[in-house]
Amino acid sequence: MIQCNELAYADLSFRCTEGVYRKLPMINVGVLGATGAVGQRFVQLLAEHPWFQLTALTASDRSAGKRYGEVVNWRLDVPFPENVADIRVRSTDTKSLKDVDLVFSALPAEVAGDMESECARAGLAVCSNASSHRMDPLVPLVIPEVNPDHLGLIDAQRDAGSDGFIVTNPNCSTIVMCLSLAPIQKFAFSDLRVATMQAISGAGFQGVPAMGIYDNVIPYIGSEEEKMETESLKILGTLDGGNVRSAPFSVSASCHRVAVMDGHTMAIWVDIVEPLARIKKAFQTYKPPIKDLPTQPPKSVQYLEDPDRPQPRLDRNRGNGMTVSVGRLREGVRYIAMGHNTIRGAAGASVLNAELIHTRKYL
Amino acid sequence: MIQCNELAYADLSFRCTEGVYRKLPMINVGVLGATGAVGQRFVQLLAEHPWFQLTALTASDRSAGKRYGEVVNWRLDVPFPENVADIRVRSTDTKSLKDVDLVFSALPAEVAGDMESECARAGLAVCSNASSHRMDPLVPLVIPEVNPDHLGLIDAQRDAGSDGFIVTNPNCSTIVMCLSLAPIQKFAFSDLRVATMQAISGAGFQGVPAMGIYDNVIPYIGSEEEKMETESLKILGTLDGGNVRSAPFSVSASCHRVAVMDGHTMAIWVDIVEPLARIKKAFQTYKPPIKDLPTQPPKSVQYLEDPDRPQPRLDRNRGNGMTVSVGRLREGVRYIAMGHNTIRGAAGASVLNAELIHTRKYL
Amino acid sequence: MIQCNELAYADLSFRCTEGVYRKLPMINVGVLGATGAVGQRFVQLLAEHPWFQLTALTASDRSAGKRYGEVVNWRLDVPFPENVADIRVRSTDTKSLKDVDLVFSALPAEVAGDMESECARAGLAVCSNASSHRMDPLVPLVIPEVNPDHLGLIDAQRDAGSDGFIVTNPNCSTIVMCLSLAPIQKFAFSDLRVATMQAISGAGFQGVPAMGIYDNVIPYIGSEEEKMETESLKILGTLDGGNVRSAPFSVSASCHRVAVMDGHTMAIWVDIVEPLARIKKAFQTYKPPIKDLPTQPPKSVQYLEDPDRPQPRLDRNRGNGMTVSVGRLREGVRYIAMGHNTIRGAAGASVLNAELIHTRKYL
Amino acid sequence: MIQCNELAYADLSFRCTEGVYRKLPMINVGVLGATGAVGQRFVQLLAEHPWFQLTALTASDRSAGKRYGEVVNWRLDVPFPENVADIRVRSTDTKSLKDVDLVFSALPAEVAGDMESECARAGLAVCSNASSHRMDPLVPLVIPEVNPDHLGLIDAQRDAGSDGFIVTNPNCSTIVMCLSLAPIQKFAFSDLRVATMQAISGAGFQGVPAMGIYDNVIPYIGSEEEKMETESLKILGTLDGGNVRSAPFSVSASCHRVAVMDGHTMAIWVDIVEPLARIKKAFQTYKPPIKDLPTQPPKSVQYLEDPDRPQPRLDRNRGNGMTVSVGRLREGVRYIAMGHNTIRGAAGASVLNAELIHTRKYL
Repeated sequence: MIQCNELAYADLSFRCTEGVYRKLPMINVGVLGATGAVGQRFVQLLAEHPWFQLTALTASDRSAGKRYGEVVNWRLDVPFPENVADIRVRSTDTKSLKDVDLVFSALPAEVAGDMESECARAGLAVCSNASSHRMDPLVPLVIPEVNPDHLGLIDAQRDAGSDGFIVTNPNCSTIVMCLSLAPIQKFAFSDLRVATMQAISGAGFQGVPAMGIYDNVIPYIGSEEEKMETESLKILGTLDGGNVRSAPFSVSASCHRVAVMDGHTMAIWVDIVEPLARIKKAFQTYKPPIKDLPTQPPKSVQYLEDPDRPQPRLDRNRGNGMTVSVGRLREGVRYIAMGHNTIRGAAGASVLNAELIHTRKYL
Repeated sequence: MIQCNELAYADLSFRCTEGVYRKLPMINVGVLGATGAVGQRFVQLLAEHPWFQLTALTASDRSAGKRYGEVVNWRLDVPFPENVADIRVRSTDTKSLKDVDLVFSALPAEVAGDMESECARAGLAVCSNASSHRMDPLVPLVIPEVNPDHLGLIDAQRDAGSDGFIVTNPNCSTIVMCLSLAPIQKFAFSDLRVATMQAISGAGFQGVPAMGIYDNVIPYIGSEEEKMETESLKILGTLDGGNVRSAPFSVSASCHRVAVMDGHTMAIWVDIVEPLARIKKAFQTYKPPIKDLPTQPPKSVQYLEDPDRPQPRLDRNRGNGMTVSVGRLREGVRYIAMGHNTIRGAAGASVLNAELIHTRKYL
Repeated sequence: MIQCNELAYADLSFRCTEGVYRKLPMINVGVLGATGAVGQRFVQLLAEHPWFQLTALTASDRSAGKRYGEVVNWRLDVPFPENVADIRVRSTDTKSLKDVDLVFSALPAEVAGDMESECARAGLAVCSNASSHRMDPLVPLVIPEVNPDHLGLIDAQRDAGSDGFIVTNPNCSTIVMCLSLAPIQKFAFSDLRVATMQAISGAGFQGVPAMGIYDNVIPYIGSEEEKMETESLKILGTLDGGNVRSAPFSVSASCHRVAVMDGHTMAIWVDIVEPLARIKKAFQTYKPPIKDLPTQPPKSVQYLEDPDRPQPRLDRNRGNGMTVSVGRLREGVRYIAMGHNTIRGAAGASVLNAELIHTRKYL
Repeated sequence: MIQCNELAYADLSFRCTEGVYRKLPMINVGVLGATGAVGQRFVQLLAEHPWFQLTALTASDRSAGKRYGEVVNWRLDVPFPENVADIRVRSTDTKSLKDVDLVFSALPAEVAGDMESECARAGLAVCSNASSHRMDPLVPLVIPEVNPDHLGLIDAQRDAGSDGFIVTNPNCSTIVMCLSLAPIQKFAFSDLRVATMQAISGAGFQGVPAMGIYDNVIPYIGSEEEKMETESLKILGTLDGGNVRSAPFSVSASCHRVAVMDGHTMAIWVDIVEPLARIKKAFQTYKPPIKDLPTQPPKSVQYLEDPDRPQPRLDRNRGNGMTVSVGRLREGVRYIAMGHNTIRGAAGASVLNAELIHTRKYL
């Protein structure tokens, strides 16, 4: 066991549980689509990972063979991890991945589906942030703190003849919402409404023109409402004999882009009939069913008492970007949830899935 | 009748119905609190008004006696109307208002209540944007397109012994929401939820520090949710023998500040059980029960078909800032409404109230 | 003569001199590239123009034949001028322009050069905002208030065998800088340094990703420094027997993009050896050598006394976007200049050139 | 010697040299004005400092006696360091500072002067970020990489009868500019011009209203130009027998606020007559005259080759916010410099001064 709190004065780009994590055998891993916005977050989170050795970075054929430090246009506001600069970029195909056991997929949706299936057939474990396979009945859609047991679907994939397997994490907004629901799912509700205020980084570096969002709100994000409305029912559903039974409530989402760099904020209404004090206590005392994973934050859900919190600029980096902050619980029942969309809602979510998979001996 | 569409090539700061308006006798008016953010909007809208002669501009005693052009720190992005520069600023007391018949109140809430009552006792008509008297049972809370008949309460004020009277307009968010409800109020609903994304100008020039809202969302605006939840029921209520009976539904609001200069955007859910096509048609064919007022826009509510509209930057100036734009009607029933918070939601609302009062011979 | 100050209560999108302008015969005009960001500004400025009848709007072949209102994705914050909605878009070729006498070019630089030359050969007058022909020795590079006599080069073009002709306006930053220099050019200087803070609209709607400029400064704009350093010497140069002799000073520019929607701000140093009071008086009393053009603002250069002005948000709309504001004159000699980059610095500049050409009987 | 690169996976708020630093005896320190914006940065930087034990946090009498975690309204985007939450806040007077040897002053200028003098008389070492004593002839104005020898003035203060002493760091913009000049000061120049684009955090949390800077540039920052023009000549001047002789050049500054959270960017012209290649090499090979201080970054000045760098959002966190980035060296001689204004330009500057003082045995 390594005591993280002994590690003072270290670099901004490192990630930490501020706690302890287990020692496990090192695994060689790759990142598919390593030069894009989500790909860069994967590289940031994996550059110093205690269990995963960053071995393969793939990109378009045009970049193959060149040094990662040469082809990446680093756009994160944390410094570039120099220890990966000399890794040679590879083409995005299974031949390039013979020396790794697990790949993280930051591929765009239009190519992710086929490539990920091919990787699984080639015997690789795939942790994907892409939407292609999320609603596939045999593919687990997992948030480790919420539905770790859904990893059971891996067996179903193997039974269906695959050597490897695919595990997906949900859409960024869905993750923040579902994590905020984890502590209170025990109180029955049938009807959920959510209005999101989403960050521009969710659309990728070129996704939102400045003239589109500056001094503006865009009340539309393609397919986002559908993802929140369907993915959440699978995640909060019940694994039952190789099938996931959807959670028994309905979600109605209204999704909006606002001028924030990172951090999705959302107003949520759930028709829970419980005293507010009990609901608040559920948020405050929530313990997730996992522990000692390196990327797991000290608190997966943190309730903030100040009346004007959570706020993306001030709270998105809690737990190194892995904590979902909750606040403003009011009659209705209404509350606010907020989380970092490219860490908790994308790359960090996949890495945490991979850590869970590793501890459960699927690798 | 003046044909406004003959008037080409005029200045940005002028306001227009793009239609026709009646000729009525000119009335001398004043603005209480003329140097603040809302006060400046009043001055902009009244500088060339065809019915109202800007006669008195009041401010703190410190500014009294000086030229308006000298004491105002003009912060609007429309040019300063030079024709008011030489008006001498007066103290904010009834002695300063002997030569006017109507005053617009842009006073802060903490002083508005008493001063407005004093003006009414002194025989003045008061059109107030302040919150102090909005929920007073004898004071009409009016949006001309929504509940013009509530002006009937003026008689109740006079019966109670006042020479003058007070008429108020609602809070900025409430106006946008209620105008969007006007076309569909005929479809019964019992339950409304609204999540707002409000502009920084709503808090006044000094109200929001840049470090507070830049790259951020603040999920809290003091008293805003309460105002939306109570004022809307009065406005959409029924005047019945000198009393307003509250509208028979409940409102649950979640209010948020975003990095937008002007224009409040909101996601609204109402439990209307009608085909979407009928609801959309109601938006598209809506005709308000007033006409030919100078500040009235060609369309008080405009339905936009594009999937990503309305947007504050692109749509807030429709109808010279007096149109509420609506869009994205979806099952749920969900839709988006957006309006200019300091024109439609504040100064323009008061001016339109005054125009309605003038045509109804209350002056 | 029409008195503009009689025209009250008109629409935001109209443009006005707040003064008087001449009556001249109406000319049919076209806009090349009418759907882009600058093209939209042309349409806005020409929709109600008293001398120019908007007749032809061209775009890509894909849009040809469709209604302008249908193909344009209107992105300006002034309302769409409905009177042009039904104009049928044409292909961008000279056959489409048989019924017009003058075209405004909002084409991108890579196609502007050839198409504009072809139009001139076909007998059209071309007022271009593109950079292609700006430094061509036979093509006037004109700011009407600064070097109207450079239109004399039109004769040189005609002598060279062309039926029509091309007149260009400078780059947006160059226009703002040169207009600010017009009042003080009479004080000799040899050395000018300028640091710009330029708006995102200068790069077109898709030009700047939000993640690039939000919470950021980009200290580089491709070719911008070169344009400021060469174009300014031609504009402020002397027409001498069919040639322009460059102005006798050097310019050293440093160009930066900042998070502003419209309005280029710049800090300028010139080595003028005069008392500040004389320089200030030159700014304050400056009278340009043109008058009574519809798009000409009341003041082409306006000196602002407040220590923190000009500011783009508050001052860019002065003179309907055609005034360059100047302030903070200090020893050094240093001062600040600011102007609206897509009106004064682009579409409005071309329209003003066309008005000057019309009064000088070149059409 | 502790190897910093062994310390992986640690928290965002820690600071690191990524290298090595010496072991020195621990000193008890205090922060004067610990709840303000700069005060919070001090607390962040000192919470885990290897040489300085955060012992006293002072604020207004109103907060005295309460827990720091209770009274501070933490506004930084790094998490609150929980290990200081329970420190009891003290009044800002010398009686409260009996158990510390050194204080960092984050006091506002209007109270800093007297309080700092009092602390020095009481025997304390004072490292001040306030402007009050910067130009005092006996007080060193120090950037450790630039003029460490100016600490010699401490002896002059002691000779003048003080038990303690005051050491100041320059204004934020001045620090960034002077650090960028350190590598090239050896090339003689007589004339420097600088145009700044400064972040809003420089004005403190309440300093800039959102409506003032959003979609805007403010071309004025009170006293900023004077500070850059005078402080820089002292810093780059020569200590000569107890006096600092001003550097032999003149500075002409134009200072502007832009919509950036942290990071001051500036365009600098210096009349150096050297080949650009030699100047660039000076930037690239620069070695400061100090080493092994915990807060010292690996590179104090870093030259960036990309044509569009440095940018505040992407480069301000280099060297944990302590590196000044330089780029775009062009004929002129022109270049861009950028640094983090509240770390390198304020709290980090004071902490680095204190570290230098400690190694030089002044404590």
